[in-house]
Amino acid sequence: MSEAVNTLEGWFVLHDVRTIDWAAWKSISEDLRQAALDELLTLQQEWSQTEENKLGSYALYSVLGHKGDLVFMHLRPTMQELNAVETAFNKSLFAEFTIPSYSYVSVVELSTYVSSPDVDPETDPYIQGRLKPILPKTEHICFYPMNKRRQGNDNWYMLSMEERKSMMRSHGMIGRSYAGRVTQVISGSVGFDDWEWGVTLFADDPITFKKLVYEMRFDEVSARYGDFGSFFVGNKVDNTSLAELLSM
Amino acid sequence: MSEAVNTLEGWFVLHDVRTIDWAAWKSISEDLRQAALDELLTLQQEWSQTEENKLGSYALYSVLGHKGDLVFMHLRPTMQELNAVETAFNKSLFAEFTIPSYSYVSVVELSTYVSSPDVDPETDPYIQGRLKPILPKTEHICFYPMNKRRQGNDNWYMLSMEERKSMMRSHGMIGRSYAGRVTQVISGSVGFDDWEWGVTLFADDPITFKKLVYEMRFDEVSARYGDFGSFFVGNKVDNTSLAELLSM
Amino acid sequence: MSEAVNTLEGWFVLHDVRTIDWAAWKSISEDLRQAALDELLTLQQEWSQTEENKLGSYALYSVLGHKGDLVFMHLRPTMQELNAVETAFNKSLFAEFTIPSYSYVSVVELSTYVSSPDVDPETDPYIQGRLKPILPKTEHICFYPMNKRRQGNDNWYMLSMEERKSMMRSHGMIGRSYAGRVTQVISGSVGFDDWEWGVTLFADDPITFKKLVYEMRFDEVSARYGDFGSFFVGNKVDNTSLAELLSM
Amino acid sequence: MSEAVNTLEGWFVLHDVRTIDWAAWKSISEDLRQAALDELLTLQQEWSQTEENKLGSYALYSVLGHKGDLVFMHLRPTMQELNAVETAFNKSLFAEFTIPSYSYVSVVELSTYVSSPDVDPETDPYIQGRLKPILPKTEHICFYPMNKRRQGNDNWYMLSMEERKSMMRSHGMIGRSYAGRVTQVISGSVGFDDWEWGVTLFADDPITFKKLVYEMRFDEVSARYGDFGSFFVGNKVDNTSLAELLSM
Amino acid sequence: MSEAVNTLEGWFVLHDVRTIDWAAWKSISEDLRQAALDELLTLQQEWSQTEENKLGSYALYSVLGHKGDLVFMHLRPTMQELNAVETAFNKSLFAEFTIPSYSYVSVVELSTYVSSPDVDPETDPYIQGRLKPILPKTEHICFYPMNKRRQGNDNWYMLSMEERKSMMRSHGMIGRSYAGRVTQVISGSVGFDDWEWGVTLFADDPITFKKLVYEMRFDEVSARYGDFGSFFVGNKVDNTSLAELLSM
Repeated sequence: MSEAVNTLEGWFVLHDVRTIDWAAWKSISEDLRQAALDELLTLQQEWSQTEENKLGSYALYSVLGHKGDLVFMHLRPTMQELNAVETAFNKSLFAEFTIPSYSYVSVVELSTYVSSPDVDPETDPYIQGRLKPILPKTEHICFYPMNKRRQGNDNWYMLSMEERKSMMRSHGMIGRSYAGRVTQVISGSVGFDDWEWGVTLFADDPITFKKLVYEMRFDEVSARYGDFGSFFVGNKVDNTSLAELLSM
Repeated sequence: MSEAVNTLEGWFVLHDVRTIDWAAWKSISEDLRQAALDELLTLQQEWSQTEENKLGSYALYSVLGHKGDLVFMHLRPTMQELNAVETAFNKSLFAEFTIPSYSYVSVVELSTYVSSPDVDPETDPYIQGRLKPILPKTEHICFYPMNKRRQGNDNWYMLSMEERKSMMRSHGMIGRSYAGRVTQVISGSVGFDDWEWGVTLFADDPITFKKLVYEMRFDEVSARYGDFGSFFVGNKVDNTSLAELLSM
Repeated sequence: MSEAVNTLEGWFVLHDVRTIDWAAWKSISEDLRQAALDELLTLQQEWSQTEENKLGSYALYSVLGHKGDLVFMHLRPTMQELNAVETAFNKSLFAEFTIPSYSYVSVVELSTYVSSPDVDPETDPYIQGRLKPILPKTEHICFYPMNKRRQGNDNWYMLSMEERKSMMRSHGMIGRSYAGRVTQVISGSVGFDDWEWGVTLFADDPITFKKLVYEMRFDEVSARYGDFGSFFVGNKVDNTSLAELLSM
Repeated sequence: MSEAVNTLEGWFVLHDVRTIDWAAWKSISEDLRQAALDELLTLQQEWSQTEENKLGSYALYSVLGHKGDLVFMHLRPTMQELNAVETAFNKSLFAEFTIPSYSYVSVVELSTYVSSPDVDPETDPYIQGRLKPILPKTEHICFYPMNKRRQGNDNWYMLSMEERKSMMRSHGMIGRSYAGRVTQVISGSVGFDDWEWGVTLFADDPITFKKLVYEMRFDEVSARYGDFGSFFVGNKVDNTSLAELLSM
Repeated sequence: MSEAVNTLEGWFVLHDVRTIDWAAWKSISEDLRQAALDELLTLQQEWSQTEENKLGSYALYSVLGHKGDLVFMHLRPTMQELNAVETAFNKSLFAEFTIPSYSYVSVVELSTYVSSPDVDPETDPYIQGRLKPILPKTEHICFYPMNKRRQGNDNWYMLSMEERKSMMRSHGMIGRSYAGRVTQVISGSVGFDDWEWGVTLFADDPITFKKLVYEMRFDEVSARYGDFGSFFVGNKVDNTSLAELLSM
């Protein structure tokens, strides 16, 4: 039996991908569309207020391609609050014109492969800030779920703690070389969703997503042990661009 | 040929995951929605009565994300009774506003990898209690189906009884270290559904699901021999929160 | 090149799994529902007549879970007759309220891994009875499709006839130990459907499905060489329970 | 780098599998159904005329099971003509009552693993006849797509030309032993569709499909190197049986 | 850790595959269909204007088979512009009669496995032309996504730079032998979509797609290291053939 690494958990995360039913959206009156938009803006205001109160965070991005039109990303201290946000949206007028095409349930996670023994994570402001992050307002988002592989000789979970630690260190160094250009939010989903982790990247230049993920793929952690799910990439949607997107 | 372990079987289990068609639900009158809710509450009362009579058990949880909105979990002594429960729900008014998005058919199972030869399982109250469990009313649920892998050198079913017994013992020790925090219901589904087992976990703190499943993943039984299906995680739904969830 | 085993073929088989559209079924008048039921009962009577005439066989079972509500199992001497049965059902009123969710096309098969050289299969009554079986009227059914694996070192089709024969003999012995409790219908589907065989089990106690399939999984034929598709399990539906199932 | 075998290409092929929406088909008037059938018969007449003019070929078969109700198989000298046939059907009245459930795009292919150097394929009547085949009017059809495997040690594309040639020779001998009972049309789909080849078999006795494909599965080419997609099997549909199938 | 190759990125690419809902399209008036076509032609004119201004490129092809009816291929300097094109189409009248059946998000990419050190790619006109290509107006298109395999001993990302460089050189030589007959646009999608690359081929003779992809499959890069997604093949659609396709 191999030794499990310790993890710290922060806020729960929901990625909620929606496809707009454009024909239905167009078929209703301008007034009704405006009412739906107003209600959505009100919901967003509540979510932003929660973020200001440091009781959660929120981001809205468009999604390119047929996998969806919008991705709502919510962070909350409890699963109950996360579910409440999802339900509130489901009951909204705008939701009637969307189809839930994908979602991901996880919790912000820090693994202690690389950690200082002198720090109390429960009170350390840096660690607490990373566990309860306020999502950056970058131009682009990239999300994908992933597993550590357990396949024949490439079985991450049969490696010793030392081997994993050493590989994660070199892996982390690639990530750090992108500091300032990409913000990563790693969330764990073992026991919550179909993959083991969710990775959400934020950047102003989407090419940095490609550069980062591609460079990491040559790193042994990804090359031998990484299995990846669907990738979602999108553009920031603020109140102005949301109104524009939904105007007919 | 490897020797099969003996298993004991108890109540049959149906996990019934439903997605609410929110637009349709909203489109009907408040009165009709109330009638649907009342009928559902009456069904629930019957199911609770069955549970009080020790003739089955029942749990209702919300589901996070797009895989569904509600999971109904039913236990019954026979497949006929289980099917009758499913049909009764299908004929209800509320069911018209739901889409069956997933389900799992299994039977509560105890394997005798670890068992005492001095006990008659047919009469032993502890064993009987585990085979016919009354589901706990914890805040959260986690469900996933799984297989034991048969892949190249990682073939569980080609191992000797001794090897399997020894691995299952260490596996069980992880589970036991979560006693008091997580309740496990293991149900077998060989011959009934697409995976070999269903695992249902109950806990008040959902992080314990993650900790437990993640720790087990480093155990050889899971690391080399575990294949996992979709994970469903949810929050307890009682009569009050059900009414709230369904009120528009 | 390995030597192919000879097979004997009997009646063609169609497993036709249907999901009931409950909302639509409820939306029509009681009279129309009765008309649909009457027509279905008439079709069933024809199918039973065919069975009495030894020109085919028929079974109807409910299906547990979201994979379907009913499975119609038909056996006929020719594909044309099998198709005609399917089309007749498709044109029926009741069919309008069902969605075809799964099906399987195969032919009853006996492999000659274990056979007596002194018998002429074309006339031997025992063999003819197994090739053109009248389906038993047990309380439960279990159906699953399967392949023999061709994966790296676990390649059934690269084994010698002797190796396969020896493994199939031990495999068959497990099956025989369930005689009287489980009736097996093995049907071949190479060239007809997506898996190589369909296995249909009939029993009064559904736990015997689990015991049998689980015990076989430790047998090398299944452990190393078996790949399995979806499992369907259900309860017998006779005229009374059909009327009850469809009454609102 | 291994040496690619040369291939000869003939007519382009479209297998177009359609599921009939029986409820919608029933809901229209007898007159409208007759008009739809007449239009379909006219289309068929055009396609038969094209076949008589040796500018293509056409076959219509029913499909058993839920994968579809009809498979239209079209051959044409160019992709433009093939697309035109597809579009003409899509615009027809009958098409409104069908759902396109599967299709396959390929081109009739002869590989030169076994070929005579003394023949000019561009003019040789035998070769030209096989590249531009008039589909036989047998009672049954069987279609499946397939790949040559590239998996670990079982990598067809890493074998030498000699090894492939030798295996294909023995493979072809099985096929030849079915001459007179089964007609094969092999079409290549590398670059056109999701598998590398489509195999269409024609026979009067459907058991020969099973015998042929099963016997080949023990041949090393299939046993180690064959990966197979979905199988479709069906019965011949002529004008009379088409009218019967579509009459309510 | 293996060394990642450098890549150059150009325009972002969206392949947008649409299925026409023929029954709905037929159900509207001739006038409305004409209005929808006119609006689509206006959109196309804008896209062509963008191409003339060298600020993007555009191609429209039909798709053979059930995977779709049309594929719109767009190139733009930014993801925002690409998303704007997609949204403008989604809001159009014609879009109401289409279902988005597939899409692919990528960016035109040149890898520097084979590159000259004396050239500044930011200014070199040849390289800039390849990164911001004007799509050729050939008769046919072929699109497929692909990965470099990471499977047991066939792990591209664990190879040394030298090994990859040498294999890519021989791979590129096959491509070059098709110069003049096939135009390739390679686009990278790591971090953007579910596969690592998209390959779009343009040719007047569709058999060259088959010849090229098949020949490459025997090359070690593809044979051992290539994993391929769905293939889409189609015919050029200009204003005349578009009007013809959509006329009823």
